[in-house]
Amino acid sequence: MNKKIGKQTLQFDNPPSILNTASIVGKKEGEGPLVDYFDEVLEDSMYGEHSWEKAESKMMKQTIDTLIKKSELKEGEIDFIIAGDLLNQVTASTFAVKDLSVPYFGVFGACSTIAEATALGSVLIHGEFAEKIVVAASSHFCSAEKQFRSPLEQGVQRPPTATWTVTGCGALLLGKGNGPYITHATIGKMVDFEINDPYNMGAVMAPAAADVIINHLIDTNRDVNYYDLIITGDLGKVGKDLLNDITKKFGYDLSEKLSDCGLEIFDTESQGVGAGGSGCGCAASVFASYLFSELKNNKWKKILFVPTGALLSTLSVQQGENIPGIAYAIAIERGE
Amino acid sequence: MNKKIGKQTLQFDNPPSILNTASIVGKKEGEGPLVDYFDEVLEDSMYGEHSWEKAESKMMKQTIDTLIKKSELKEGEIDFIIAGDLLNQVTASTFAVKDLSVPYFGVFGACSTIAEATALGSVLIHGEFAEKIVVAASSHFCSAEKQFRSPLEQGVQRPPTATWTVTGCGALLLGKGNGPYITHATIGKMVDFEINDPYNMGAVMAPAAADVIINHLIDTNRDVNYYDLIITGDLGKVGKDLLNDITKKFGYDLSEKLSDCGLEIFDTESQGVGAGGSGCGCAASVFASYLFSELKNNKWKKILFVPTGALLSTLSVQQGENIPGIAYAIAIERGE
Repeated sequence: MNKKIGKQTLQFDNPPSILNTASIVGKKEGEGPLVDYFDEVLEDSMYGEHSWEKAESKMMKQTIDTLIKKSELKEGEIDFIIAGDLLNQVTASTFAVKDLSVPYFGVFGACSTIAEATALGSVLIHGEFAEKIVVAASSHFCSAEKQFRSPLEQGVQRPPTATWTVTGCGALLLGKGNGPYITHATIGKMVDFEINDPYNMGAVMAPAAADVIINHLIDTNRDVNYYDLIITGDLGKVGKDLLNDITKKFGYDLSEKLSDCGLEIFDTESQGVGAGGSGCGCAASVFASYLFSELKNNKWKKILFVPTGALLSTLSVQQGENIPGIAYAIAIERGE
Repeated sequence: MNKKIGKQTLQFDNPPSILNTASIVGKKEGEGPLVDYFDEVLEDSMYGEHSWEKAESKMMKQTIDTLIKKSELKEGEIDFIIAGDLLNQVTASTFAVKDLSVPYFGVFGACSTIAEATALGSVLIHGEFAEKIVVAASSHFCSAEKQFRSPLEQGVQRPPTATWTVTGCGALLLGKGNGPYITHATIGKMVDFEINDPYNMGAVMAPAAADVIINHLIDTNRDVNYYDLIITGDLGKVGKDLLNDITKKFGYDLSEKLSDCGLEIFDTESQGVGAGGSGCGCAASVFASYLFSELKNNKWKKILFVPTGALLSTLSVQQGENIPGIAYAIAIERGE
C-alpha cells in the first residue's frame, strides 16, 4: 500500500486512533450551542492569572492535564507533545508544556495548527516511534485581539466579515486503538489569492480549504458523498459561502456535507461574533468536544476535518504582504 | 529493532540520508572563518528588498531554490517543506515558501528549529511518506534585533554574554541515498533553570543541551567517544563552558569533542560578536556548509548535531516568565 498517494496525501495503512480528547473554553463559548460537550468552561477569561497570555497557557496546561487524567495515564506515558498557538514565538504552548518533562515539538500552522499537529503525530504513531502522543492547540480572544488587532479597551468597530477568536483549547490523545481512526492526512500548500484584509480571514482561507479538499478527493479517488460531514476550521459565514462557490466551479458540490467549527461553536445570530468563531482553539476545541463525542455516538461514520489557517503577522500586513492561507484535511473514520 | 529507544530517542533502522544542502549568509558571516563553505554571501543585509523581514524571506527562498537547483530537481519533486524561523508567526518561512506550491509544515523550535524539522522530516522519509523533503531555518540579525531587543539605530550596549544573531539560512534535502545518514534523533524536553535574562541565551540553553546529550547517550547506550564531534547550535562561549561544566558533574566529559556552531561561524576575537553567533540560521547555515562538506570530505565519520533553542517572546520576558531552553540531538553518520 502506498504511504503517500497523489501529490499531498499521507495514507495510514495501519491507522492511528484518536483515543481520547479534552477541551476547555471561555465563558462566551460556554454560552454557545456546544456547552454540554466541553470538559470545562471558564468563569472568567483571566483564569486566575495576571495576564491573558498566562491564562491561555494555563488553559492549555489544564486541558492536557485533563486529557491525561481522563485517559488514566501518567505524564511519563506520553511519548511526545506536539502543540502550537497564535502568540508570538508560540509561547502559550511553551509555558503550558514546560513543566511536563515530555519531549516536545512546537508547530505553527496558524488556525490550522491542530491538524498539522495531528498529521505529524499520526506519522510518528504509524512509524511506531511513539505509543501515545498528545496534540494540542489554543487561542484566547483577548491575547489575540491585543496582539493582532487593537486594544480591547478601544472598542474598535468590527466589519461584518470579521470573525471572533475563540477562547479555547483542544487536546487529542493519539495512539493505537479501536478508533476513531485517522486514515489519511492531506497536507496543505499555501494558497495566496492576494487578499490583504486582516478583517476578512474567511476570504483568505476559503481558497486554501478548497484546494486541500479537492486535492484530498483527487488523491484518495473519493467522492464528496464518501463523507458524512466535511467540516472546516474557522471559515465563518463568509468563508463557508466562498468555499462552496469555489468548489462548485471545480465540479464539487459540498453544500450538503459542509459545516464549519466557527459556525458550530457560536450562535452567530445571537452571540455578536460577526462571521463566526476563529483561532487555533476553534477547530481544536470543537473537535475535542462535539466532533469526537458525536463520532463516538455514531452520528457520523466518516468525517473530513479541515482546519484552516491564515499566515500573517501584524508586521507582514503592515509591510503590504498578502495573507496566504493554508489548510490540512484529516480523514477520520469510526470503523465498525 | 525498536523505533523509539529510551525516553526520547527515535532510531531509524532504515536511515534517511542528507542528500544535499545549501546555505546563504550575510556579509559579516562571509567575513568569518567559514566563508569558503557558503553557497552565497550577501553584499548587503537588505538583499534588494524594502525591509529586513522581506530580505530574510528572500534569503530562505533563494536558499531553497539553490538547493533544488544544485540537486538537479524540479520543484514538483519535493514532497514537503518543513521550515521555521524566529519572526512572529514564523513569517520569514511563510513568505519564502508561499509561491512554491509544495505541501508545507511550519515549525517553531526557536534556534533549534533546523533540528526539529530534520527529526520530523526523517520520520516522514523513514515511513515512506516522502521521497524528498526540504528542511530549512533562517534568521536575520536586523529583523531579530528589531523584534526582540532594541532599534538598531539606538546603538544599545550589549553585555559580554550576549550573542550575535546570524544572518543566514541553511536548507537540507532529505531522502534515501548513500549518506550521510541520520541514524537517531533525540527529541528535547523543555528545561527551565529559572533564567530570565534575554541577554544570556547561552545560560538558558546549556542545561537543555546537557539534558538532551546525556539522554541521547543513555538512550543509545553510547559513550562520548562514539562521536568524532559533538556540536551545539548557538551556545556561544558562555553556554559552551556551562555545558561542559554541567555534563562533567553528571560524569560525561565532552571537552575533547565539543564545538558550537556559533563559535565556528565567527571569529569571536576579532569580529565583535560578543559570546558568538546565534539564531535559527546559525546551526542551519553552519550545518548546511561546513559540517556537511567536511562530513563528505571524511573529516568526521560520526557527529552529534545539537541545535539549541531559547523559548521566549518579548512579552513573555516582560511578563516575568523564565526562559525555558530546548535542544534536539541528531546523530549523523557518514557510513563507509
